[in-house]
Amino acid sequence: MADSPKRIGLIGLSAKGSWASRSHLPYLQRTSLYQLTALQNSSQASAESAATKYSLKNVSVYDNPTAIAKDPNVDIVAVSVNVPQHYDLIRPALEAGKDVFSEWPLARNLAEAEELVQLANEKGVRTMVGLQARQSPSILQAKEIVASGKLGKIMGTTMFGHGLLFGGIIQESLLYALPIEAGANLLTIPFGHAVDALCYVLNSELKDISATLSNHYPELDLVDENYEPIEKRKKTAHDFVSINASLVNGGGNVDVTYAPGLSRTGRDFVWEIIGTEGSIVLEGPKMGGHVQMFQPSVKLAVGQEELKEVKVDKAADTSFNVGKAWDAWAGVGLDKGYSVTTWKDAVLRHKMIEAIYRSAEKGTRENYV
Amino acid sequence: MADSPKRIGLIGLSAKGSWASRSHLPYLQRTSLYQLTALQNSSQASAESAATKYSLKNVSVYDNPTAIAKDPNVDIVAVSVNVPQHYDLIRPALEAGKDVFSEWPLARNLAEAEELVQLANEKGVRTMVGLQARQSPSILQAKEIVASGKLGKIMGTTMFGHGLLFGGIIQESLLYALPIEAGANLLTIPFGHAVDALCYVLNSELKDISATLSNHYPELDLVDENYEPIEKRKKTAHDFVSINASLVNGGGNVDVTYAPGLSRTGRDFVWEIIGTEGSIVLEGPKMGGHVQMFQPSVKLAVGQEELKEVKVDKAADTSFNVGKAWDAWAGVGLDKGYSVTTWKDAVLRHKMIEAIYRSAEKGTRENYV
Repeated sequence: MADSPKRIGLIGLSAKGSWASRSHLPYLQRTSLYQLTALQNSSQASAESAATKYSLKNVSVYDNPTAIAKDPNVDIVAVSVNVPQHYDLIRPALEAGKDVFSEWPLARNLAEAEELVQLANEKGVRTMVGLQARQSPSILQAKEIVASGKLGKIMGTTMFGHGLLFGGIIQESLLYALPIEAGANLLTIPFGHAVDALCYVLNSELKDISATLSNHYPELDLVDENYEPIEKRKKTAHDFVSINASLVNGGGNVDVTYAPGLSRTGRDFVWEIIGTEGSIVLEGPKMGGHVQMFQPSVKLAVGQEELKEVKVDKAADTSFNVGKAWDAWAGVGLDKGYSVTTWKDAVLRHKMIEAIYRSAEKGTRENYV
Repeated sequence: MADSPKRIGLIGLSAKGSWASRSHLPYLQRTSLYQLTALQNSSQASAESAATKYSLKNVSVYDNPTAIAKDPNVDIVAVSVNVPQHYDLIRPALEAGKDVFSEWPLARNLAEAEELVQLANEKGVRTMVGLQARQSPSILQAKEIVASGKLGKIMGTTMFGHGLLFGGIIQESLLYALPIEAGANLLTIPFGHAVDALCYVLNSELKDISATLSNHYPELDLVDENYEPIEKRKKTAHDFVSINASLVNGGGNVDVTYAPGLSRTGRDFVWEIIGTEGSIVLEGPKMGGHVQMFQPSVKLAVGQEELKEVKVDKAADTSFNVGKAWDAWAGVGLDKGYSVTTWKDAVLRHKMIEAIYRSAEKGTRENYV
C-alpha cells in the first residue's frame, strides 16, 4: 500500500489569483503524494473565498499561523506570501513541529533566515525552499552538460537578465518590495533565483565577489490597474545589480548583470558558460530574467562544431518546476535529477546576498563560504 | 592652392603583410592629404622589399628610428609595430621634433606612456594614437543616439566580447604578447579598444572599477602556419577580463567581460546600453570583439517601440577607421563627427588599465580620474 498523502496547510492562496494559485495549487490538485487540508489567509473570509473559488472541499480555513500550525490534519505548512511576512508565519509552524515549505527568499535577511533554520533543526523538522529553478528542465540539462565534462574546464560564465521588477513603475500589490529592509527586490528575487541556478549548474559557490548596486529609480510611479500613474513612491531597494566573482571550484570568471523592468531589445535573459572545450548559451523569453518561472532554450557548441539547440522537456506551466520540487520532497523523481533544496541552501544564498551588499557598500571583494 | 601633403615616414610596413599594409597603406595610397616618403623596418632589405612589394616609388628606406626621424622629407613618423617596440621607436622621432602617430597601446605601461607624452609636450609636436574605434560609423552612430537624449538617463551598459587572442594556441608572430610586461594582450588591446569606444559613446570615463582578471591558459600551444602544435609556451598575460564600474558622468552601471579566442556561440561582441527611455544593442560579426576593426550592427528601441536596426555607413575595409583618423588629423571630416584621439587620451586609457590591474591584484575598487 502506498503511503498516505502528506497533508498540506497552505498559507497565501488568494481567490484573486496569486503565485500560490498559479504554481502550487495546480500541482497539489493533480498529485496523489499530497493533499491540501487547510488554508490560512489574513482573514477567515478570505481563506473561505479561496476554498470556494478553487472548489477545495474539506479544507479547514484559518486567519492566523498558530491555528493552522496546530491543526492535527496538517503535516506540512507551506508559506507562499510576501517575503516580509515569512518569518512571522513560519515560526508558529516550526514551534508546532511541522515540516515547512517556504518560498524564496526564506526571510527578509540572513539573521531571520538563520534563526528559522536553527529552530527547524531544534525541532527536527524537514524544510524546503522555493528555489525552483533547480527543477527547470533547461537548468537540469545545462547542469548535466557541465557535469559531463563536454565543456572542458569552465573559464567563465556571463549572465544578463532583466528583473521585471522596478522598471520605473510599481503596482499596489508590490509596494511592500520598495524598502530595502523588506528583502524582496531585484537582487534577492530574480537575481537570487538566477544566481542560485548558476551555482547549481556549475556545481560551485562564488568567491571574491565585487558588486556594484544602483538605485536608478529612487522614486517610482505607483500605477493603477490601467497603468495610470497615481503618485510617486520612494524606493530604497536597488534596481541594477552588477557582480563579478570567481567560481570556488575552479576559478572561472563569473559576471552577472541584472537590469530593471523588461528588456526593450529582446534580451531578457542571456546566460553563457564558456569552457576550454565547449560553450552553452541559455536564452529566455520575455520575462525570462525570472528563470525560475520562464524556461530558457539551451544551445551547445563543442570544439569546432556548430552551435545547436539542445532538446529539453518543456515545462508545461508555472506549476511544473514547483511540482517537481514537491515530488522530490516526497522522494519521487530524484533518479531523474530533481532535488530537494533545503533551508540550508537558502541560508547559503542569503549569505551570498549579504556578501554582495557588503561588497557594494564597502568597495571590497567579499566571500561567504 | 591646397596645402602640400604631409610627408609620412612609416615604421612597420612588412612585405609579408601586416596591420600597416591592411590599414594605413590603402588609405595613404588614395589620399591627397598625406604622402608616404619613407619606410623603416628592422633591416634596410626588409624596408626595400616592402617598397617593392607595394610599388612605393621615391620612398627612402631605413633600418633604425633615428635615421627616419632625421629625414628632412618626413613630417610625421607613424609607428605601426608590436607594442613592446613603441617606446624605442617613438623617442627618436620626438627628439627630432616630428609629429608622431602611434598605434594603441601607446606603450608597454603607463610610465612609458607618460614619459612619451611629456617629451612630446616639451617638443611641442602633435600626437595621435590609433584608438580608431572612435571613427567607426557604428560607434559614431551610437554616440549620436546617446547624445540626442533618446535613451534618457543611462542606467547601465553591458559589453561582452571575445578577444581573439589567447584562445589556447599562439602563433610565432604573437609570441611577444605572452609576458604581461609586454603590455600587448587581451586586456590592453581588444578590451582596451572596446572600452575606449564605450567611454567615447557614453561621453564618460569610469569610476570605482572592480576587476577580476584570470589567466586560464598559463601555457599555450605554439602552432605552426598549419595550426599544428610545436611546443608549449608560458603565458603570464591574462585571458579573461571582468569589470564592473560606474559612469563618472551619471553613475550608470558598467559591466564588461572579455573572453579569450573566438566565440563558439556567435557572440563575439554584444554591447547593450540601457537608458530610462530607450536602449541600443551593438552586435559584432566573427572577430567583432576587435570593435576597432570589425563593424557592429546598431539596433535601437525607444519606449514601447519595436527594436529596429539603425542604418549606418559601412566601413568598406580595415583602412576605413584608420583613414578617417588620418583625415581628422588633417582637419577633414571633423564636421562629420570624426575626431583626433591624442596621446592625452591614450594616457587616460593606460591609467584605466593600471586601475584595473590594481583592482584585480588588491581586491579594491579603483579610480583613475
